[in-house]
Amino acid sequence: MSSGVILLVEDEGILLWDVEQSLVEAGFEVASAFNAATAIETFDLDPERISAVLTDIRLGDGGTGWDIARHARVTRPTLPVVYMSGHGADDWPSEGVPNSIMISKPFVMAQVITALATLLNAASSLGIS
Amino acid sequence: MSSGVILLVEDEGILLWDVEQSLVEAGFEVASAFNAATAIETFDLDPERISAVLTDIRLGDGGTGWDIARHARVTRPTLPVVYMSGHGADDWPSEGVPNSIMISKPFVMAQVITALATLLNAASSLGIS
Amino acid sequence: MSSGVILLVEDEGILLWDVEQSLVEAGFEVASAFNAATAIETFDLDPERISAVLTDIRLGDGGTGWDIARHARVTRPTLPVVYMSGHGADDWPSEGVPNSIMISKPFVMAQVITALATLLNAASSLGIS
Amino acid sequence: MSSGVILLVEDEGILLWDVEQSLVEAGFEVASAFNAATAIETFDLDPERISAVLTDIRLGDGGTGWDIARHARVTRPTLPVVYMSGHGADDWPSEGVPNSIMISKPFVMAQVITALATLLNAASSLGIS
Amino acid sequence: MSSGVILLVEDEGILLWDVEQSLVEAGFEVASAFNAATAIETFDLDPERISAVLTDIRLGDGGTGWDIARHARVTRPTLPVVYMSGHGADDWPSEGVPNSIMISKPFVMAQVITALATLLNAASSLGIS
Amino acid sequence: MSSGVILLVEDEGILLWDVEQSLVEAGFEVASAFNAATAIETFDLDPERISAVLTDIRLGDGGTGWDIARHARVTRPTLPVVYMSGHGADDWPSEGVPNSIMISKPFVMAQVITALATLLNAASSLGIS
Repeated sequence: MSSGVILLVEDEGILLWDVEQSLVEAGFEVASAFNAATAIETFDLDPERISAVLTDIRLGDGGTGWDIARHARVTRPTLPVVYMSGHGADDWPSEGVPNSIMISKPFVMAQVITALATLLNAASSLGIS
Repeated sequence: MSSGVILLVEDEGILLWDVEQSLVEAGFEVASAFNAATAIETFDLDPERISAVLTDIRLGDGGTGWDIARHARVTRPTLPVVYMSGHGADDWPSEGVPNSIMISKPFVMAQVITALATLLNAASSLGIS
Repeated sequence: MSSGVILLVEDEGILLWDVEQSLVEAGFEVASAFNAATAIETFDLDPERISAVLTDIRLGDGGTGWDIARHARVTRPTLPVVYMSGHGADDWPSEGVPNSIMISKPFVMAQVITALATLLNAASSLGIS
Repeated sequence: MSSGVILLVEDEGILLWDVEQSLVEAGFEVASAFNAATAIETFDLDPERISAVLTDIRLGDGGTGWDIARHARVTRPTLPVVYMSGHGADDWPSEGVPNSIMISKPFVMAQVITALATLLNAASSLGIS
Repeated sequence: MSSGVILLVEDEGILLWDVEQSLVEAGFEVASAFNAATAIETFDLDPERISAVLTDIRLGDGGTGWDIARHARVTRPTLPVVYMSGHGADDWPSEGVPNSIMISKPFVMAQVITALATLLNAASSLGIS
Repeated sequence: MSSGVILLVEDEGILLWDVEQSLVEAGFEVASAFNAATAIETFDLDPERISAVLTDIRLGDGGTGWDIARHARVTRPTLPVVYMSGHGADDWPSEGVPNSIMISKPFVMAQVITALATLLNAASSLGIS
């Protein structure tokens, strides 16, 4: 049994590093990916190990954050999903998955931590073993 | 100014007729479509006229209920969306739009009316003119 | 002990009559008022008798629906409040009370019944005797 | 596959009959019980057949509505639960199950229908097959 | 483009300073005001620059926290609002704006950060550009 | 007047110490107990002093976290309750109290802080003096 790992996807290296550091300081385990293909590969390797997805929207070639979330939810329908985006926030009502949270850039890390903590607590309370 | 119209999409004729009758009895105006292409055409003719989408998932050739909702939300990001489905309920966590409601078949009409009324009331309260 | 009475406030006679009839058919007891002064007088006569306020916003001279709700909430902080309005919906984010519902005109009665039922059920569950 | 059955538990014969009639008119299938022992027996016979529990609190000898809901939630952790009560509303914060709704007597049937419809719609949207 | 600024209003100098420090440590930009007049002036200078209001209720002469929130919501109907108060908590049901959060003094900063983060995330997800 | 105290109940000494330290760093006052009997005694000494219960489920002999929460809610029906558990999460749908939050072990402290802050803020907003 494991507390699970936050799958963090971001193609801007500095932002990826910053967010990863903050998550680790907050006690989370993190698996990072620079693009959608790597993120999906990481997820598929062991879907039960991932406890939440935290992803940017625009990720260069090979897929978006919308694609990653939809892929993960096929296997794990109750998985917490948090999107981070500057431009993509407008597309959340049509492209986001249900019960996800959209955080507009720029943001403070407290918004990310609060979003993840809220969704993880809600998932714990579903009563599904 | 108009109260708007429920865009109802269902490819089973009898179910379409039943739901339409119940909505009309409850006081709603209804625009009906048998498939995704007609639904999208009806929506695009006058997007502001539609106050909510109520759609089946599987609609034969030419697109699903998931496609209709995503299309409508591009133009109208706060539009209420209610899905009705037997088999498609499992796909809602990956294919549904945010803040939508999924109703599994078979259902009673009170579930549909409550879902529409709840989402319409929430939309009235957004404070966006 | 009594199930309480819906305090209905509306200055358009026909709409008042229509809504009152629908509420009575749904099983509610109703106390009607045409303006804010009468509504407040009715409320103050026996505040515990009123189980919810359902009010139009613009009510001619002597006060608005916003005033009625604020007045009632001073004595009954958890009282359900539902506003009905065409033009006043834009002012709800600044003038409405917390945990109230705004319904834009024109509306169907199912929206009013659902709003009242939802707020009454939530009030029952507060655990305050 | 079936839409499921509302398990209705009430020891006052007239109220049981009234509520049952209203549920049937609203399109629901109903299985009725006068006390906790019969309710639990009905539930255990085929737990998957029950789609929601609607129960009074005080049921004479042999168990309360609190007992029925806890028993049913062991097997079906996401089952919708609605309590109806005059005196027991005060005990809901300590005796009720999570995500249930308490409706105080006297109530109108619209409150019961709205409560059941809201919880059934939420259960459909959990993404659990 | 900017992440926006928290408009912080508090007439007790030490508490103002403490809360401001904690917000800055959490990564927020802050604009502070000691009374309602200055707060409203700061807001009116550039309403789009403010991303949330965090205000005490009693502010000496010249207006309360209730006034500031109502004023800001006229221009920005979806603006997050958090109130901090010892005595004013009782008036929130009649004087607060919809979808605001009331925090009773004394409080810990985690309550303020969580309230702001939750409302900012909800605002990002409205789908309004 | 006092901000109140978090009643923390945990029978694993190291985890109790860790959580207590984190709560104190976040600014909370904490009263700790190793088992249900001591927790209930601490609560009964001055129920108004306790602002929230944070409890493990399995606590050795003499009662569980479920028992503590039910006991506290009899006197304080709106008291925030957060459960922490590895194995007991499955029983939350049948054994938890309404409006509580279940956090599965292992967890990060941000989940506990967010859960407590969210419930404390909601309790402040009930409008009950």
